[in-house]
Amino acid sequence: MPYVNVRITKDGVTREQKQQIVAEITATLVRVLNKKPEQTHIVIDEIDTDNWGFAGMLTTEYRARAK
Amino acid sequence: MPYVNVRITKDGVTREQKQQIVAEITATLVRVLNKKPEQTHIVIDEIDTDNWGFAGMLTTEYRARAK
Amino acid sequence: MPYVNVRITKDGVTREQKQQIVAEITATLVRVLNKKPEQTHIVIDEIDTDNWGFAGMLTTEYRARAK
Amino acid sequence: MPYVNVRITKDGVTREQKQQIVAEITATLVRVLNKKPEQTHIVIDEIDTDNWGFAGMLTTEYRARAK
Amino acid sequence: MPYVNVRITKDGVTREQKQQIVAEITATLVRVLNKKPEQTHIVIDEIDTDNWGFAGMLTTEYRARAK
Amino acid sequence: MPYVNVRITKDGVTREQKQQIVAEITATLVRVLNKKPEQTHIVIDEIDTDNWGFAGMLTTEYRARAK
Repeated sequence: MPYVNVRITKDGVTREQKQQIVAEITATLVRVLNKKPEQTHIVIDEIDTDNWGFAGMLTTEYRARAK
Repeated sequence: MPYVNVRITKDGVTREQKQQIVAEITATLVRVLNKKPEQTHIVIDEIDTDNWGFAGMLTTEYRARAK
Repeated sequence: MPYVNVRITKDGVTREQKQQIVAEITATLVRVLNKKPEQTHIVIDEIDTDNWGFAGMLTTEYRARAK
Repeated sequence: MPYVNVRITKDGVTREQKQQIVAEITATLVRVLNKKPEQTHIVIDEIDTDNWGFAGMLTTEYRARAK
Repeated sequence: MPYVNVRITKDGVTREQKQQIVAEITATLVRVLNKKPEQTHIVIDEIDTDNWGFAGMLTTEYRARAK
Repeated sequence: MPYVNVRITKDGVTREQKQQIVAEITATLVRVLNKKPEQTHIVIDEIDTDNWGFAGMLTTEYRARAK
């Protein structure tokens, strides 16, 4: 009964990309751990870059500096 | 000191329904485990069906197929 | 497709208590939100009192002071 | 490799406040546990007061009663 | 900066299986979303079957009935 | 009503270090966001290095290579 939570920054991820992520992670858990797809739940949380801190600063600022 | 996180799909859940869920889960924890209501926190996350994967696909697609 | 995470302090909760919590929370979600039991997952995390901070101190210490 | 999740009610927290929270929590983990800032991630979730249950009721109602 | 939490039942998962899960999920996020491996963290939580509720009962009991 | 989850690798963190982390994060939330200590919960999860994936491998392996 896996539950997977994928947390990423909100960067315009498309429905097709989400579908691919869900399909691949489910396939991994089925193949490696013999889990059942109908008992595998995967929740994707898209986080505003103002709400994701990294290296002591907000990702918004981190990316501005990195340019 | 319980902390409960309820994650559900975003399907127009009303404030009354949220209130009922919070009241009942709190009552369960008070009755079964003798927890204090004022130390019991329950956070409800409503997840877009495009962000909830199930059975290897997005719930949006799963529901469309189920019709 | 609810996923519920119940986090409580590790205080010798019995299997019967866990079973009751799972049964009651599932019943609440079925009754209030019309969810399906076979798509409802509830994970209980039991946390050592040294790892649960409350009111600025560890619960171990909080409880010792409360005596 | 710390991952920190800060969940708070959605109350108009400013970018400056988020930056300060991220900077201080990162500094704590670096100082106390010798963690590396570039491996420290902090995600802030702002929760609607209708979705945060406390003391058996929604925070929206709790605050209205407290006035 | 993805953070992924994989929650599974505690069933004697080996280090090799964990390594494969981490490698594959990281590869998915790099390929589909162009994420950097050195900013991708994946935490695997192994949950006792007495602590995972499914279909209104503990997984321990669910599996015993399924035999 | 903040809830904070700090996830770190299991590296012999002492009770004193946990106490300091809890005290400092609580102080940050009180000072920056005006939160109440008695409504602030902080849970520390210590994760085995075999269960924390980073840069596509388990932390156990990552550290062995880094030596």
